[in-house]
Amino acid sequence: MLAATAVVPPATANGADPLPSWNDTAAKQAIVAFVETVTKEGSPDFVPVDERIATFDNDGTLWAEQPMYFQLLFALDRVKVLAPQHPEWKTNDPFASLLKGDMKTALSGGEPAIMQIVAATHSGMTTDEFDQIVRDWIGTARHPVTKRPYTEMVYQPMLEVLTYLRDNGFKTFIVSGGGIDFMRPWSETVYGIPPEQVVGSSGKTDFLMRGGVPVLMRLPEINFIDDKAGKPVGIHEHIGRRPIAAFGNSDGDLQMLQWASGGGGRRLALIVHHTDDIREWAYDRNSSIGHLDKSLDAARDNGWTVVDMKDDWKTIFPFGDKRD
Amino acid sequence: MLAATAVVPPATANGADPLPSWNDTAAKQAIVAFVETVTKEGSPDFVPVDERIATFDNDGTLWAEQPMYFQLLFALDRVKVLAPQHPEWKTNDPFASLLKGDMKTALSGGEPAIMQIVAATHSGMTTDEFDQIVRDWIGTARHPVTKRPYTEMVYQPMLEVLTYLRDNGFKTFIVSGGGIDFMRPWSETVYGIPPEQVVGSSGKTDFLMRGGVPVLMRLPEINFIDDKAGKPVGIHEHIGRRPIAAFGNSDGDLQMLQWASGGGGRRLALIVHHTDDIREWAYDRNSSIGHLDKSLDAARDNGWTVVDMKDDWKTIFPFGDKRD
Repeated sequence: MLAATAVVPPATANGADPLPSWNDTAAKQAIVAFVETVTKEGSPDFVPVDERIATFDNDGTLWAEQPMYFQLLFALDRVKVLAPQHPEWKTNDPFASLLKGDMKTALSGGEPAIMQIVAATHSGMTTDEFDQIVRDWIGTARHPVTKRPYTEMVYQPMLEVLTYLRDNGFKTFIVSGGGIDFMRPWSETVYGIPPEQVVGSSGKTDFLMRGGVPVLMRLPEINFIDDKAGKPVGIHEHIGRRPIAAFGNSDGDLQMLQWASGGGGRRLALIVHHTDDIREWAYDRNSSIGHLDKSLDAARDNGWTVVDMKDDWKTIFPFGDKRD
Repeated sequence: MLAATAVVPPATANGADPLPSWNDTAAKQAIVAFVETVTKEGSPDFVPVDERIATFDNDGTLWAEQPMYFQLLFALDRVKVLAPQHPEWKTNDPFASLLKGDMKTALSGGEPAIMQIVAATHSGMTTDEFDQIVRDWIGTARHPVTKRPYTEMVYQPMLEVLTYLRDNGFKTFIVSGGGIDFMRPWSETVYGIPPEQVVGSSGKTDFLMRGGVPVLMRLPEINFIDDKAGKPVGIHEHIGRRPIAAFGNSDGDLQMLQWASGGGGRRLALIVHHTDDIREWAYDRNSSIGHLDKSLDAARDNGWTVVDMKDDWKTIFPFGDKRD
């Protein structure tokens, strides 16, 4: 049946190809064969609509993550905006180096330095205020290389997969190491994924009445890190069902891919491999951003689908590619 | 406009009354007026479909909670089943008293004793195994007073509200102090609420590969208590939008009702007041289960809707009432 479905071109109800930005290679055929099999009534691998859950990593899977995670670029922009209220930052690292434009020294403190930057820029306001800060930034900030809005730095072939799955009864979720409240203000417009279907890392919040008005204050404390073994935990907590399809691009997605593919029955586990240094970026085993090593080995050992961006994608971004 | 809509009988598309188990009193009129107003295009209080979020407490709001929380009855049943594997329980309280049927001594240890019982019965297995344990129990256990399955101890008028809201484009969520994984196995069948729309208290889980198979192990550690000020926190974490309608019955729901009603625009905050000792149970300010004191005062001060079960509901349970 696999062979039979693989040679039939994928089609939507009106006969159009639902994945026009994909070359007709093994990756596209695997996606189409999976969707056709699990949606075919009477098939031994048929999955009822309610259980058609698909989870997507965000950074490097739905949108780009070079030259660094976009949420970190947001945090750096916020440090500049907030600096006048924090004279002590002039002398204290990582802030002092950041404000001097010396990114290398600023980030040399590793994860603790990054957490300091995140805490200083992501807490101390209400959830409604943070929502507005993110909306303002995402509506005006530009990617340092392409000068495009970040919301255009999304992968056209993956947008097509999201729509194709939803057209076939799937519920699509983001499951990202990124901040849940950083993604929610724009996930519905950009991906068609509503806030309640976004799973991500989060800080603690505190409910209180402020002058008679109920608010949720964002605290400088980690609540949950939705990465690596945290991804199946976050999926269980938020969704309460096991995905039958999962999409990632790095070692941070390994456990999500294991969890989704280990459920019995027909499953799709897919890795986006960044192989195109001309149209996008090329990086994997030696990269700190989007580090892809164990997951690539696991893909080979388990027969997961690996997308070779260079060969499998006709188009990268809705506007073209990095050079446009 | 409120007066005008209040005198028009509520109707579904085919003209039938969507709330037939409700007497035509102020509570029913408030629900109908709210739904008609927020769904009327062009109304200043119109709410787009995506933002029509309604949250429901479970114990005492959607199903009964007397003579004690049903999840506690589940835990007690599990203690009996597991006792042969725990010879030490014969001498250690709260287990020793429980097994002798002396509930009063067993629960005299208060919250720490209850947490011991919950930890012993809700952890140490995989999430899939716990799901099956709950399914087996809910399919066979009977309520001590009515001898009915617990899934029939649900309020018929509230089932009608759930359907009425969904028919009007609302997404309905459970937001309960009860265990998230205790509710999910049956919430879809009983309430039409899928697992991903259930918010509740949870324990920590740990992802690991067990003999090559990915599992989530349930740990004897609290992850989140979805009660009181935890309810708005849980709502924000899981849903990421503020409800425009919230339904509760106790002081555990106060902050959820404040959060929902404090969002600006037309809102519905509703409290189920247990006033019918003949057909159900009557309890409020002096009850430890379903303690309703501050929320009742807040309802009066803020003009929230209070359902007087005795006067407002024609029917209590789908099968009738406590005496049937």
